[in-house]
Amino acid sequence: MPSVPIQYGELPNVPVGATFANRRALHAAGVHRPLQAGIDFAPGQAAASVVLSGVYPDDDHGDAVDYTGQGGLEPGTSRAIADQKLVLGNAALIRNRNWGVPVRVIRKVGGVFRYDGLYSVDEFRRERYASDGFLRCRYGLSALTRSAPWVARDQATEPLRVEQTVLRIVRDTAVTREVKRLYEFTCQMCRIVLPTPVAPYAEAAHIKPLGGRHHGRDALDNVLCLCPNDHVLFDWGAITVLPESLTITGEAVLEGRQLLTVPAHHIDLMNFDYHREAIFVPIVDRVDR
Amino acid sequence: MPSVPIQYGELPNVPVGATFANRRALHAAGVHRPLQAGIDFAPGQAAASVVLSGVYPDDDHGDAVDYTGQGGLEPGTSRAIADQKLVLGNAALIRNRNWGVPVRVIRKVGGVFRYDGLYSVDEFRRERYASDGFLRCRYGLSALTRSAPWVARDQATEPLRVEQTVLRIVRDTAVTREVKRLYEFTCQMCRIVLPTPVAPYAEAAHIKPLGGRHHGRDALDNVLCLCPNDHVLFDWGAITVLPESLTITGEAVLEGRQLLTVPAHHIDLMNFDYHREAIFVPIVDRVDR
Repeated sequence: MPSVPIQYGELPNVPVGATFANRRALHAAGVHRPLQAGIDFAPGQAAASVVLSGVYPDDDHGDAVDYTGQGGLEPGTSRAIADQKLVLGNAALIRNRNWGVPVRVIRKVGGVFRYDGLYSVDEFRRERYASDGFLRCRYGLSALTRSAPWVARDQATEPLRVEQTVLRIVRDTAVTREVKRLYEFTCQMCRIVLPTPVAPYAEAAHIKPLGGRHHGRDALDNVLCLCPNDHVLFDWGAITVLPESLTITGEAVLEGRQLLTVPAHHIDLMNFDYHREAIFVPIVDRVDR
Repeated sequence: MPSVPIQYGELPNVPVGATFANRRALHAAGVHRPLQAGIDFAPGQAAASVVLSGVYPDDDHGDAVDYTGQGGLEPGTSRAIADQKLVLGNAALIRNRNWGVPVRVIRKVGGVFRYDGLYSVDEFRRERYASDGFLRCRYGLSALTRSAPWVARDQATEPLRVEQTVLRIVRDTAVTREVKRLYEFTCQMCRIVLPTPVAPYAEAAHIKPLGGRHHGRDALDNVLCLCPNDHVLFDWGAITVLPESLTITGEAVLEGRQLLTVPAHHIDLMNFDYHREAIFVPIVDRVDR
């Protein structure tokens, strides 16, 4: 690790748009410390910054970036020879999502490196490239609004403190209402019904997530009725459902339990295939360095 | 209940700003069916509309309304003689919040009734008025943006279907990070640690909620480290903590359990007093008609 201490959030004297001649200058300013790696992080902590390599230009849409993790390449080349693992910087970026910690984004533009502001890490998925058959770690980043700048408080001692970053948003749609009605707010995994006053509470979890990158549908065959705890475990890849048997796998308490289903709820089992590959993190891949 | 069927969301041929000569005209148009009551709802369902009475003008800030529930008055007068209960329209408005169903807001302006658009029910609290000592049910309403109109799908058969209303937002702040660190992501109520890959997951719950109406502080002495399930139960008044003994009350599974605490976490016990009165719904008040 570089000797310059890691710093999160906006940096004093580094306005959005500031440029740096090379990686050494980025390092000296504390904007991005590694001289080669694309992800700056501290062990067990979130990432502080990423440099967009330009290797995947189609993934950079300005305010929305689909960032590819590190690793899996033949040394000295850009040829993939293995799956990317959830270790080092790849694991750090998961913590950004889990904890709501934004990253600085640096782009190489016209031969110099430009600081382009803070981005939230909204999404993580694993994607198998058809071209070579190897899994990449992919992260959906989106630019934070300039009107609410994020500044880490008291950086020296508590680098990870976060200001008002939205961490999880639970929405309610026609389809999610319907699945809750079918199961009468019972969690299909642990069978709990949360007894809040006046009406019980449950959440609808999309198996293949909604949105442009996952292309999941907001349809009854793509949602489960879950309690908030199991919704978090499912969305963040701690557990998945094996489509052949509808058994839950990945986490001790629920391991081997069968998903509760009612006849009126037809689930498209292909969505579980997608979840298992793209969202679920097998226990063997949960090495945390 | 009126014979006109209840309808949720925007109504065809009733644009925002449409005016009606009197309550009977509102009724005939299906905009607000009761001729006297301020809340239109169906038994066991959410509310469809509210009429701002003008009795509490200070509570109407245009796009943000602090709505007062029904009941507790001496018949034929506006004098409070009892606490308002969580029944009828008051219970229905809780379902609007829980299920993300917006209400139509109608204002009396210049002698006529004007439809002012859809509002989300963001917040519920019980408030004891110093003037007479009785509890009111209070609801924080906020105008939905015009750019994303809410329309109930297939109204006739499924009146409660909802389009993309944000239901819960979990934020992460400096203080909430700190309380999670203190408890190492262990729920102070049920002791679970949710084992998501790379890093465990927990949420920080403000005891006295943040925001203008509650005036709670984002400070360590006002937050708990909870799992998502217990966070929902706590925020929505199913459970509370008795400050004298730190025991949990209100819900069978947790009833009588003591809150987990560590010496470094000083909690301002006054916040539990506030939660018990304003947020918690005692079991005796959970009559659901």
